[in-house]
Amino acid sequence: MNFYMPVRLITGENCIRKNAAELRRFGARCLIVTGAHSAQSCGALDDVTAALTEAGVEYTHYSGIAANPTVASCKEAGEQGAAFGAGFVFGIGGGSAQDAAKAVAVFAANPGMDEDGLYSLQWPNAPLPIVLCGTTSGTGSEVTNVSVLTDSKKRKHSIHVPALYADLAFGDPRYTASMNRELTLSTGIDAFAHAAESYFNRKADVLSRTFAAKSIRMLYAPLRKAAAGGALTAQDRLDLYEASIFGGLAISVTGTCFPHNVGYYLTENYGIPHGTACAVFHPAFIAHCREAAPEVMKAFTTDTGLDAAEYTDFVKSCLPELRVTMTEAEIAAALPRWENNGTVKNTPGVITQDFLRKTLEELFIR
Amino acid sequence: MNFYMPVRLITGENCIRKNAAELRRFGARCLIVTGAHSAQSCGALDDVTAALTEAGVEYTHYSGIAANPTVASCKEAGEQGAAFGAGFVFGIGGGSAQDAAKAVAVFAANPGMDEDGLYSLQWPNAPLPIVLCGTTSGTGSEVTNVSVLTDSKKRKHSIHVPALYADLAFGDPRYTASMNRELTLSTGIDAFAHAAESYFNRKADVLSRTFAAKSIRMLYAPLRKAAAGGALTAQDRLDLYEASIFGGLAISVTGTCFPHNVGYYLTENYGIPHGTACAVFHPAFIAHCREAAPEVMKAFTTDTGLDAAEYTDFVKSCLPELRVTMTEAEIAAALPRWENNGTVKNTPGVITQDFLRKTLEELFIR
Repeated sequence: MNFYMPVRLITGENCIRKNAAELRRFGARCLIVTGAHSAQSCGALDDVTAALTEAGVEYTHYSGIAANPTVASCKEAGEQGAAFGAGFVFGIGGGSAQDAAKAVAVFAANPGMDEDGLYSLQWPNAPLPIVLCGTTSGTGSEVTNVSVLTDSKKRKHSIHVPALYADLAFGDPRYTASMNRELTLSTGIDAFAHAAESYFNRKADVLSRTFAAKSIRMLYAPLRKAAAGGALTAQDRLDLYEASIFGGLAISVTGTCFPHNVGYYLTENYGIPHGTACAVFHPAFIAHCREAAPEVMKAFTTDTGLDAAEYTDFVKSCLPELRVTMTEAEIAAALPRWENNGTVKNTPGVITQDFLRKTLEELFIR
Repeated sequence: MNFYMPVRLITGENCIRKNAAELRRFGARCLIVTGAHSAQSCGALDDVTAALTEAGVEYTHYSGIAANPTVASCKEAGEQGAAFGAGFVFGIGGGSAQDAAKAVAVFAANPGMDEDGLYSLQWPNAPLPIVLCGTTSGTGSEVTNVSVLTDSKKRKHSIHVPALYADLAFGDPRYTASMNRELTLSTGIDAFAHAAESYFNRKADVLSRTFAAKSIRMLYAPLRKAAAGGALTAQDRLDLYEASIFGGLAISVTGTCFPHNVGYYLTENYGIPHGTACAVFHPAFIAHCREAAPEVMKAFTTDTGLDAAEYTDFVKSCLPELRVTMTEAEIAAALPRWENNGTVKNTPGVITQDFLRKTLEELFIR
């Protein structure tokens, strides 16, 4: 086992208001980081501002984080925080706002630093303390030290260093109730992808596999229900949210496998939502794992109740039809980015360029 | 969920030597804290001193921690560490040495402080950084902020505050290979007691129950084998060790239930080893839980594979015959200590004084 996850995690109804007193110790001034809409409409922003006010913390609010957040927006938010004299950053949202908040905390502590400075991971000052609140059931960013950002060349990269763990993370499943079916599925299947890619990951151990298997067991029924168009209960929402945390705990040990990084390419070039963009590669992923790691496949089936066929059927049931078409030349041009990629290397067996080429061709050449 | 466990945990063969470079950041001088024998004979001390030397860390060694360690011995060790100018404490051993090391880190940072100062939890200086290495498969102290010590009145108390989490904890199952059958059982059944008392605890949540259930599933077969006198394989030792960590993770969320605190009384007055002293109350514990929390009992059976009868049979198979006899008067005199006890309150249902009296009478009046 190799485990380090120093985030204080508090979930449950009204957990932010109940723990308002915890906030003051991070500083007297706070930079709130959100996207333009969902943190507001789900009620999380109101709870956060009320809790900060109760704790005697002043705040300023940057609401310019978009899906697949850019480094530029994080820098802009960081400069706003530095100008305000923020002592800490409070990120509210799904994976985009939470991942962004981690980078914002770096920029706010290092005003004037540019994109290269961020990616150098050599920061003169430690990031500001980070508090997070999740509003979707997918990312698990609450409990990882990962920040996935889009750079000035429109490429998604993940950075992950211990300093990017939040100090405190909240999760109130009420905030996820406003997600529509499409968002529930695209985020939920991201959590599934985290858990499955962690379970089969070369770095997996008994602890990460325990998290991963529990995540999948908790996701299965409510995602099946959502896929079939059923209405989710509060318990379903709670299960999905907690499952996303288990997925995050799993990848905080192992990281992900090739579907996650190849998924970035689909998001960058075709605007496919992140979870969907990763999960579309999962039928190929599980077929590969069944061959490359039959003992792990067997243990996976015991631990989760899913064999490879059920797994594939489940993933497909959660995926929308993707209207993406590629040419052979486009695929050939994309392949080099995965030549030395960590997620490819952490996949069991050997993921060759030829395997990736065939996988992309089968999915996207019509 | 409410989770905070900031220990960096590294387990596996040779994990200390492989991670020697990690040690230097805690300071240039180290106080090693052990008992008189086992840390030496199992090979852990040699690995630690070699790793410290490789890291350029000087050390002094206090080897006066006995089973059920006293506050006085922790204070003595702390003074030795302060005089040496130790920057951190490295505790090696089972629960006794690890729990002691946490208190030693407090005394070393606060020379001259007395027992009342320790128990006040108001320490002028933060404890020194703490590094731990486990050598038994029971305590889980590696991943808890708990230190159970015997005070000057010969009473066992636990203290638990966030500052007592280790900074780094190692677990190399090779060190557990020198445990005899008796120690394997008395420590293994302690891990079982942690997991079961956590599972039924009022503070349990989906995360702590996942840890607890996994612990029990991993403990069951090797402890059955040990109880039957079978020889344990390296895999059995690994499973037992990792199961003890899962038990520690579970109680780091919930704490324990009444058997743990009532067990202290048996240890204090009759010298019964800690794990055995707690587990002897588990047949009464599970009979109570089955009545008081039938839904939890049902989930427990699903998650662990054990119903109440199998649970009781398993615990009894791991227990030696206890040659303890009490009188009604002794029992009556002991009861008040559990009137406002936290472990009693965290047990589901209501644990009355009458319940505890009857439980003790049935076990120990002959």
